[in-house]
Amino acid sequence: MIVASAPAKIILFGEHFVVYGEPAIVLAIDKRARASAELRTDKRIYINSVDLGLSGSFMEEQFQPELGGEEARTKLEPIKIATQKVLHFSKKQVGVSIEVESSIPVAAGLGSSAAVAAAVVVAVSRLLDAKLSKEEVFRFAYEAECFVHGTPSGIDPTISTYGGVLLFQRDRGFKSLNVEGDIPLVVGDTGMERSTGEQVAIVRERRKHFPSIIDHVIKTGREVALKAAKALETGDLNALGELMNINHALLCAVGASNEPLERLVYAARKTGALGAKLTGAGGGGCMVALCLPEKLEKVAEAIKRAGGTTFIARKSSEGAKIES
Amino acid sequence: MIVASAPAKIILFGEHFVVYGEPAIVLAIDKRARASAELRTDKRIYINSVDLGLSGSFMEEQFQPELGGEEARTKLEPIKIATQKVLHFSKKQVGVSIEVESSIPVAAGLGSSAAVAAAVVVAVSRLLDAKLSKEEVFRFAYEAECFVHGTPSGIDPTISTYGGVLLFQRDRGFKSLNVEGDIPLVVGDTGMERSTGEQVAIVRERRKHFPSIIDHVIKTGREVALKAAKALETGDLNALGELMNINHALLCAVGASNEPLERLVYAARKTGALGAKLTGAGGGGCMVALCLPEKLEKVAEAIKRAGGTTFIARKSSEGAKIES
Repeated sequence: MIVASAPAKIILFGEHFVVYGEPAIVLAIDKRARASAELRTDKRIYINSVDLGLSGSFMEEQFQPELGGEEARTKLEPIKIATQKVLHFSKKQVGVSIEVESSIPVAAGLGSSAAVAAAVVVAVSRLLDAKLSKEEVFRFAYEAECFVHGTPSGIDPTISTYGGVLLFQRDRGFKSLNVEGDIPLVVGDTGMERSTGEQVAIVRERRKHFPSIIDHVIKTGREVALKAAKALETGDLNALGELMNINHALLCAVGASNEPLERLVYAARKTGALGAKLTGAGGGGCMVALCLPEKLEKVAEAIKRAGGTTFIARKSSEGAKIES
Repeated sequence: MIVASAPAKIILFGEHFVVYGEPAIVLAIDKRARASAELRTDKRIYINSVDLGLSGSFMEEQFQPELGGEEARTKLEPIKIATQKVLHFSKKQVGVSIEVESSIPVAAGLGSSAAVAAAVVVAVSRLLDAKLSKEEVFRFAYEAECFVHGTPSGIDPTISTYGGVLLFQRDRGFKSLNVEGDIPLVVGDTGMERSTGEQVAIVRERRKHFPSIIDHVIKTGREVALKAAKALETGDLNALGELMNINHALLCAVGASNEPLERLVYAARKTGALGAKLTGAGGGGCMVALCLPEKLEKVAEAIKRAGGTTFIARKSSEGAKIES
């Protein structure tokens, strides 16, 4: 049995603006999805998602649910796609059993589905002895993502594949940032699921009403991301925090925030976070606060009191990889 | 006895950005300061501020407190300055008793001191039969304001003098906007007093850290104000509300908001306000919500539940004027 894992991500800067071609900064964190893969005696693709409590097996386009009925099919489909891509690449006609397990909150902007897909691609490729380049791991995970998100930006499978801290720009790919120091973060989850597609549509609508204003905001977002890249590389946490606050305000300007997010953001700031912002599409999902290490627990406590569930996250340089 | 009054104001758009030469939109509301003036048999300037519970009389640079001790001197000084300006203009050497009364919350960004000063200037000028142009009323009120605020933008004495809805720009003066319809507003007061000077310094500091970013935000503020001027003149309340929300976010980006303000702003938006923003310098003080008339009471209730004191405000075309 082969076990692989891939990291969740936090968008530190530039979410939404990235849709309009501007840079985003994304960070892999020490929260990972795990996938184990083993060969079967039949030719089915059997998938068991431990956290979702869903399982079943695919044979070509046929699905046979085990746990979770027809809902299982939709939720497990991206994992099947990732597996098929590797099977196809390896040119082997075998059956595979896959179990996935992830402690990453779902639909919260942390890239859980991409982390699962990347972990699956790596586990299955090792199982089948298929030598994939990182670029291929990314591509297969991206194709699984397309099933979930339509035409996603590609940020999530990129960071899950490569890890570290990336400056990402649509049509230009990404650049690894050289971040030496620690980036101590508290993630606060509002518990409100939201749809990335709907959030992107809200911004698009506002831009239709006020193109010159929103384009100004987007350009400002670009400046913020570029300054933040410098602050990350020089380890200037104070500047980084202030830039996170500004970025959050720009996300408010395009209509991405809401009251539950604001409650957590202000709880963090009041307790001494260097900066706090929503992360991802907004309208629910998660926020993230940057703190000095000695403040992490206190800020996490404050976010909890304000109604969020929290975890402490650290940047992780490890992308998708074999565990055992 | 002569009674005059002048209106409070709400900055609808462009506070803070106006300091950097960009346009602001300011609205006179139906909340007024009143001043009554009568001649005395001595040459003193006696002032009684009913709401502040302070009184005393000035004779040249001497002050004799009646109620409130030495604190009275500082608080009554601007009223004395306004009175002296008119006395000097009229070339009359007489004593004047002044009583001021105002229901405008103090230090909340509603221009209470300028409204008082403009009412005093108008009352005293009528008392002394001094024919002042509007420009002179403004100038004398402005000079009283300088005692309170150092070098104020001039917005407050302008709107208290002229009333209506003004597009104001530093070094360019103001332009009256032709607003036909009603602008139904709820003002929510956090009850936190704050200093305009300190708030301006916060923005200046952030601009020093990130000049290119903050200059982008300020330019975006300009776009918002210009679009809002159009929305006001065409009576497009939906657009106006959305622009208020955007303007609020830009004020967050320069560091002007805080948790109590956000709480009131989101309470208003959640209850169906078309838009809501802080008004004035921020860091406390007031917020303002634009509502359809039938929603005013409900939004006011929600703001109260969120911890604010509220009043419903309507635009007023009447500037400083004689009451009786």
